[in-house]
Amino acid sequence: MTTTDTTAAETNDPIRNGVDTAALFATLDAVRQAPAAAKFQFRAHNQWVSGTHNRTTIADYFGVGEERSHERTFVFDADHPPTEFVLHALASCLTAGLANIAAARRVTLTEVRSTVTGDIDLNGILGLSPDVRNGYQQITVRFTIKGDAPVETLRELMEQSRVRSAVYDVITNQVPVTLEVNVPDIPEGARS
Amino acid sequence: MTTTDTTAAETNDPIRNGVDTAALFATLDAVRQAPAAAKFQFRAHNQWVSGTHNRTTIADYFGVGEERSHERTFVFDADHPPTEFVLHALASCLTAGLANIAAARRVTLTEVRSTVTGDIDLNGILGLSPDVRNGYQQITVRFTIKGDAPVETLRELMEQSRVRSAVYDVITNQVPVTLEVNVPDIPEGARS
Repeated sequence: MTTTDTTAAETNDPIRNGVDTAALFATLDAVRQAPAAAKFQFRAHNQWVSGTHNRTTIADYFGVGEERSHERTFVFDADHPPTEFVLHALASCLTAGLANIAAARRVTLTEVRSTVTGDIDLNGILGLSPDVRNGYQQITVRFTIKGDAPVETLRELMEQSRVRSAVYDVITNQVPVTLEVNVPDIPEGARS
Repeated sequence: MTTTDTTAAETNDPIRNGVDTAALFATLDAVRQAPAAAKFQFRAHNQWVSGTHNRTTIADYFGVGEERSHERTFVFDADHPPTEFVLHALASCLTAGLANIAAARRVTLTEVRSTVTGDIDLNGILGLSPDVRNGYQQITVRFTIKGDAPVETLRELMEQSRVRSAVYDVITNQVPVTLEVNVPDIPEGARS
């Protein structure tokens, strides 16, 4: 069996593996016609709750030339861009670190808010331009912090959180990734 | 007001900003005594559902010398290591890409499972060793794929997903991160 053994009816089926291939190719064509439409900016809005507990909401983004909103706010196992999890992870890590460090230095925080934005050009992952990287080209984190300490002290806490952040390290430096693939060799006759 | 203006009673309070500082320092001491206990491995278990929809469960990990389980499985805004989101993001990105690419190449997938493990030494983020990085030292992704194509074809789909993955790019290459901090300058008399 090869990948071309499927029938014409099957190959023309717009849905395969649950993927709307018609929409997929339509998107490819649309971006091929207007490359600027592929410039996206995903965002995660994070608010500290208490201790290392904080909450991120993913709702709005910029794409296809304008401000947009997801149809619903983020749910863990929902179908949405995985790259948004990286932004959530960064905000969560920096905020948790800030709370820990502030506590260790005897500073009481009253409010911590942050917005993380990641700029991405979908020409990369769509394979339409070899000059565009797949991932974010730039990530920006904007924090607002309030607490019972001078402005300079609060800034120092944030800086120390950055210096000690695991996710900040992962994103700004390189982590080696090993990919192992197991494909059970099913006899041809047993394949569906 | 400075950070040392708090009273002795306040400084001895084990909870500040919701952080259990007593437990925090106890952990620091414990790891200082037994540095090997800080070697953790977090994991995300991912299973493809349909299309670009897949599900990650975060439940077990290795730490303090043994296999462990979180008290509960992952909930979006819960209090747990933010670095686990990076693993979830990677599994989700590679799986969604695989489904898209398989569909584009007319391969029907019947099962896609993956486990992502990230090795981290908490000596880094705890500031106990300048030689240990804050983030993951190594990430390993293990996929099991089944579908109506020869083994080599399924492996090629996975390889193409890796080559086009945004999260894989973010993790294995560098993304510049800009951190902006806004600290409203509240008059001393108005501080709580």
